[in-house]
Amino acid sequence: MSNPAPQKTAISPRREEDFPEWYQQVVRAAELAEPSDVRGCMVIRPWGYGIWENMQRRLDAMFRATGHRNAYFPLFIPLSYFAKEAEHVEGFAKECAVVTHTRLEVDAGGKMKPASALTEPLVVRPTSETIIGASYAKWVQSYRDLPILINQWANVVRWEMRPRLFLRTTEFLWQEGHTVHETEAEAREETKQMLDVYETFVRDHLAVPVFSGEKSDSERFPGAVQTLTLEVIVQDRKAIQAGTSHFLGQNFSRASGIQFQNREGKQEFGWTTSWGMTTRLVGTLAMMHGDDDGLVLPPRIAPTQIVILPITPKEETRARVLEACDALQLQLRGKQ
Amino acid sequence: MSNPAPQKTAISPRREEDFPEWYQQVVRAAELAEPSDVRGCMVIRPWGYGIWENMQRRLDAMFRATGHRNAYFPLFIPLSYFAKEAEHVEGFAKECAVVTHTRLEVDAGGKMKPASALTEPLVVRPTSETIIGASYAKWVQSYRDLPILINQWANVVRWEMRPRLFLRTTEFLWQEGHTVHETEAEAREETKQMLDVYETFVRDHLAVPVFSGEKSDSERFPGAVQTLTLEVIVQDRKAIQAGTSHFLGQNFSRASGIQFQNREGKQEFGWTTSWGMTTRLVGTLAMMHGDDDGLVLPPRIAPTQIVILPITPKEETRARVLEACDALQLQLRGKQ
Repeated sequence: MSNPAPQKTAISPRREEDFPEWYQQVVRAAELAEPSDVRGCMVIRPWGYGIWENMQRRLDAMFRATGHRNAYFPLFIPLSYFAKEAEHVEGFAKECAVVTHTRLEVDAGGKMKPASALTEPLVVRPTSETIIGASYAKWVQSYRDLPILINQWANVVRWEMRPRLFLRTTEFLWQEGHTVHETEAEAREETKQMLDVYETFVRDHLAVPVFSGEKSDSERFPGAVQTLTLEVIVQDRKAIQAGTSHFLGQNFSRASGIQFQNREGKQEFGWTTSWGMTTRLVGTLAMMHGDDDGLVLPPRIAPTQIVILPITPKEETRARVLEACDALQLQLRGKQ
Repeated sequence: MSNPAPQKTAISPRREEDFPEWYQQVVRAAELAEPSDVRGCMVIRPWGYGIWENMQRRLDAMFRATGHRNAYFPLFIPLSYFAKEAEHVEGFAKECAVVTHTRLEVDAGGKMKPASALTEPLVVRPTSETIIGASYAKWVQSYRDLPILINQWANVVRWEMRPRLFLRTTEFLWQEGHTVHETEAEAREETKQMLDVYETFVRDHLAVPVFSGEKSDSERFPGAVQTLTLEVIVQDRKAIQAGTSHFLGQNFSRASGIQFQNREGKQEFGWTTSWGMTTRLVGTLAMMHGDDDGLVLPPRIAPTQIVILPITPKEETRARVLEACDALQLQLRGKQ
């Protein structure tokens, strides 16, 4: 007796055959995203974006419940700002998209080329500590102005040589929280609190078990004193970083000049934190819950909860089946 | 008898003295936004961003109700894509931020400078017809794939020489709808429908009377066949464009190769539209409803509905006043 042929699956290859390729096929079959012709940049299709919107909605509510408000800061960072924190610029220098011109003109051969060179090049934000720090330096004068608890939903760019849909892309979407506090203890508490928020979100809303801990020196965020992280082990038993929360000490407030008069009337640098989650979570979700027949989503994050499939093998019952499906739809929507 | 001195107002100058300066002062006093050190880019502060979020929420619901879904396309457009539609590239050439490098390195003098020049420069999207068209060309094969009804919430960049907070900024936030249809009539209907959606939104949610009509040849969107527009007359009796909806004919589908097999089995180019509203609306709102004492917001869009101001002139009643305010707060929140 020979073994039965393996059952045919909707996704090929199966997970055990080639996990990375299985993942790409799941993302394409579910129409979550696709590569674009801009190297490393992806197109997030409506189904994928719908998942991200649901994540945003839930995370945003959790940020508000912990006292944060949203704001929006410039996409471009002057090179001189970016270079203020030495470790920071070193950490990101190799992956920065740089804007050098502000116009296009037709050259002698009739081809378009960049014109009007900028005096100072602009870095497309890979993260916003330095540009947000410049605003905070203006807003913070006294301990009475603290804490500042702000979050931003934005796109960021980190040039990626080996892109993978959602997991590693040159442009990605994320939220970045940036806070300033009066004391070290308060800033450390915020760093921990936001990791806890992330953990609750990933565990309770994405139904993904997580490991939380601290990044090693070599993996710490460039410029941070401490980086806390959530790591997820997906089905190929590899870890994916699901979110990070950084205690930045006074490094960035020194670099940006975020100073305040403390309760003793002395000038002091603020204590800052930053924390972020990205569209990488959409890929993590697919790697965690998907199976050989494709995408599986936890109900709290699925853009569609129910699909009604009319099965109409006989022409004479077709109309009645469709009618019953329509009635069921109305009933489920609570409209009947 | 001399005239009485004019009453002191919270905003100086008053509207009749200097309307443009009054506007800037209202935006600053209400902490809606402020200029950044990146020329033409603004920082949208939490109060300003809260207004934009409320606009987004309401508009987004209206887009969904008319069958649209959200997606996200790359920030960067390869120069060759952008140049495909001749009028389009000509219209935007003078205001394009161009990415030419993907790395920073330290030069001989110890200063950071751009490195790793791109073979093909990338334009930071001033609008996304061409980059979205590249995806649609892949998605559309048959009339059965139509219509495509997609909206994107995003940041765009148009280099601005004379910036004004919200009204004219180099980077701004917006939504851009991009649709493909089987017939000219359907695309024209969509163009009109979205102008109607905008009109309803501006009139009923922003409480702003509008004039709708068609842009002249010189003001038409670069590459469009027809541009419909909503114009608002603010308190200085000048018009501000509040939203536009473009019928693009087959111009962009020809440029991007969006072709489908029609019901007769022949290849045909799709009929496309695009339509957008921006953060300029926040400024328009301030110019429309504000008075000499500052910002006035229509209730549907105000981030805060009620402010309780405890007045405690006497120390002995202070505790009781605060207690009554707390009780009122709980009552208003429906928690008592």
